[in-house]
Amino acid sequence: MAPRSRHERGVEIAILVFDRLTALDAVGPYEVLSRLPGATVRFVATEPGPKRTDNGFLALVAEHALGDVPHPDIVVVSGGFGSRAALADARVLEWLRTAHAGSRWTTSVCTGSLILGAAGILRGLKATTHWASLEQLRDFGAEPVTDRVVEQGKVITAAGVSSGIDMALRLAELVAGRDIAQAIQLSIEYDPQPPFDAGSLAKAPARVRDLVARVRPAPAGR
Amino acid sequence: MAPRSRHERGVEIAILVFDRLTALDAVGPYEVLSRLPGATVRFVATEPGPKRTDNGFLALVAEHALGDVPHPDIVVVSGGFGSRAALADARVLEWLRTAHAGSRWTTSVCTGSLILGAAGILRGLKATTHWASLEQLRDFGAEPVTDRVVEQGKVITAAGVSSGIDMALRLAELVAGRDIAQAIQLSIEYDPQPPFDAGSLAKAPARVRDLVARVRPAPAGR
Repeated sequence: MAPRSRHERGVEIAILVFDRLTALDAVGPYEVLSRLPGATVRFVATEPGPKRTDNGFLALVAEHALGDVPHPDIVVVSGGFGSRAALADARVLEWLRTAHAGSRWTTSVCTGSLILGAAGILRGLKATTHWASLEQLRDFGAEPVTDRVVEQGKVITAAGVSSGIDMALRLAELVAGRDIAQAIQLSIEYDPQPPFDAGSLAKAPARVRDLVARVRPAPAGR
Repeated sequence: MAPRSRHERGVEIAILVFDRLTALDAVGPYEVLSRLPGATVRFVATEPGPKRTDNGFLALVAEHALGDVPHPDIVVVSGGFGSRAALADARVLEWLRTAHAGSRWTTSVCTGSLILGAAGILRGLKATTHWASLEQLRDFGAEPVTDRVVEQGKVITAAGVSSGIDMALRLAELVAGRDIAQAIQLSIEYDPQPPFDAGSLAKAPARVRDLVARVRPAPAGR
């Protein structure tokens, strides 16, 4: 039987998660991309099961092994402290290389881009990540930039944690057009009104930057 | 033994979840509030276990039964299609009334406010919810308003889905002061740059509003 066309099978999205992830890195893009008409979203991990966040307070369930989703249309790689282990996991890197070879878009949020880098996907490209990890992109032959969302052909990287929502809305536009992407924005009522304007390194006062260590997720002690 | 003081035990946060929730409703506030120094976050449900999202693609694990966390400092009630069942669940309403009686703040995101309403907590108060459900607040004696975050004493309601991030940053300021709240904003790099400006009913063109039905989460068929 011939493989189904992309149109017939809809948009298949794989979100890579792992222990000690940052939940919003994964859930922001999920909340946007899952609303694409015809979308299927699968949370994938080396070992299926609950994946606990960096602070230990929450687990997201990865129901699929990497091998269950070898050829997604869209790859989303989340970040968090666990990215350090993930980028040294040969099974993760091998899956990423294969998935990227066939994907329409390969994307990351936060330190997820370091995992893309370790898989060799960012070599020679501009890319971004959480501001605290920007320089590490050079280790993988990428050129760090401080834009919130960085598009390089089919590779799209986003900055820290919450930036995955913005990235995913742009991706929704690429997949389904601007009207659908705007309808998703309205559906999740994404009309951001942060009470302060300290969300980037350039905007935050020095005394706020100095406090970041106090609000970092504690290593999961459970 | 005397109960520990609030200072000694830190800030205890309970996030109410249920089947058919909208994941970002819960994960947005979680990502902010979990970074408060000394915070403990517990995901609670009538029956502990994995709680599947409205589209069936993701499960968040609620590790605690309602009775495990009777007296949180902060209550966060998430929304989603499952709020309809939750607001008719006497166990949920009883827990909410008790938790609210002792809480420092009682909050909701999206249609979570309808659950607060069903528990009698919004009577005579201004409140908000997802734009598509605003008028239902009147059923519970609340006055619907279209602000993104509505503070009424210790009761804080937020609008649809993504608004929980803004609400939680304000709450972080109330709990720990503006510098810590800004450090959390920087930590999650919340410098929103949506690619479009269609995130509220007032801003979205009519053709976009008409498309929302196409991007609603499909009822979970799994």
